[in-house]
Amino acid sequence: MPTGPVDLTAIETDAAPGFDGGKSEGKAALAEMGDELADLQERLFAEGRSGGRRSVLLVLQGMDTSGKGGVLRHTVGLVDPQGVRITSFKAPSEEERSHDFLWRIERALPGPGYLGVFDRSHYEDVLIARVRHLAPDDEIERRYEAINDFEQRLVESGTTVVKCMLHVSADEQRERLLARLDDPTKYWKYNPGDVDERGYWGAYREAYELAIERTNTELAPWHVVPSDKKWYRNLAVGLLLRDALRDLDPQWPAPDFDPEVERRRLLDAEPPA
Amino acid sequence: MPTGPVDLTAIETDAAPGFDGGKSEGKAALAEMGDELADLQERLFAEGRSGGRRSVLLVLQGMDTSGKGGVLRHTVGLVDPQGVRITSFKAPSEEERSHDFLWRIERALPGPGYLGVFDRSHYEDVLIARVRHLAPDDEIERRYEAINDFEQRLVESGTTVVKCMLHVSADEQRERLLARLDDPTKYWKYNPGDVDERGYWGAYREAYELAIERTNTELAPWHVVPSDKKWYRNLAVGLLLRDALRDLDPQWPAPDFDPEVERRRLLDAEPPA
Repeated sequence: MPTGPVDLTAIETDAAPGFDGGKSEGKAALAEMGDELADLQERLFAEGRSGGRRSVLLVLQGMDTSGKGGVLRHTVGLVDPQGVRITSFKAPSEEERSHDFLWRIERALPGPGYLGVFDRSHYEDVLIARVRHLAPDDEIERRYEAINDFEQRLVESGTTVVKCMLHVSADEQRERLLARLDDPTKYWKYNPGDVDERGYWGAYREAYELAIERTNTELAPWHVVPSDKKWYRNLAVGLLLRDALRDLDPQWPAPDFDPEVERRRLLDAEPPA
Repeated sequence: MPTGPVDLTAIETDAAPGFDGGKSEGKAALAEMGDELADLQERLFAEGRSGGRRSVLLVLQGMDTSGKGGVLRHTVGLVDPQGVRITSFKAPSEEERSHDFLWRIERALPGPGYLGVFDRSHYEDVLIARVRHLAPDDEIERRYEAINDFEQRLVESGTTVVKCMLHVSADEQRERLLARLDDPTKYWKYNPGDVDERGYWGAYREAYELAIERTNTELAPWHVVPSDKKWYRNLAVGLLLRDALRDLDPQWPAPDFDPEVERRRLLDAEPPA
């Protein structure tokens, strides 16, 4: 996203910018990317096991049904789960509320070499918190700068931050909620509260616009991902992740031992009994 | 495993018990199982989101190179990463050592609906701890019963515990360590200390035999998985996981709302602006 004022109504939700094909080509492109993504992630993981300090944090935000879970399954699911740390942030617990809003976020940050994924994040503290007045106005105001300082520190300490807003239309959300009501295997994903939140659609849009505008920094920029097309959403996040990993360009670590010496140790030793 | 004394030398490492085909059939069988595994896991996750308390804990133990990482990637990787919680236990930190050996284990247990996976586990505290005398003999002795009590409590509170010992031969381990030395993309997996541990092969075997014998309970039985064939190891753990999930037979949760009422709420509301 370019910096400056944000108008989400000007960003199409059902577009597929930068991709020429349709659904089947999009799915094939994601699958094809799988090997490269997995390779890059494994290199980063190897680096982390060998003294490297770098990591990647993927932040997924979006209205209910925008597809955070779908991205976890279809895109994040392409890499080795061993190197992934997913955290789903719910309404904060009493203990979490007794601390600064970033306390629980700090505890969920990826370690060296890991791909951390936030399904919702510290942004809820300036989104639902703003719309539903869960904190005083001046506290909400304070948080934008606190987030920028926090993310700057993250980036400076070696974590690449990839922030994605999964952008769906109100019509598409209605269709997806109705689909959950039509399918007993999807009832568990439905929450009557989602319809209440939907009543604040305009207020959420404004809160997103403000949050993106205030925290769309050079070090940790926002990406608004058109998400009415599920296949495009999954592909677009995959491409963002791939580009972030390519920029890191993680290399297989050099050995801190002499392979020839080790080979001899293995071959010369008595076979263990 | 039947209960009673355990003789690991009597269990073939390169066999494929219960499976007729070879490598390509085995890989195909695992891939085919993917949909059922993913479906069962999603049902369990749905149950956990709807008030259910059940979960599954997969414990992976085995000598270096036995393939714990391979199982994570190829078998656990078949299900939605959103519902999986993997913990890799390393040598305990100073803080961890200052607590009872089960302290860090408790903190890593899967929540309701989750598939927890331990890459190494509390069993290290009666394996390397026994072989390398990291704790007094009477403390090691105490731990077997402590583990049984702990696992009994886990099972009684709704966690199915699937314990797998990935069983490789010393020859196969040598080949795998040599392969790591032949391939710069695998150097990071090689640790000269692995050769030192290999020198205690017989002591580890005895420690495994004792651990399995003492903790092979009806509630939390051990499975010794022949693991010289990687494809068989991945398939066998997949089958154990599938059987555990089938036994739980998780059902899609009933709605705690009236779908018809919700449908009307969605359709009757003004389209949000």
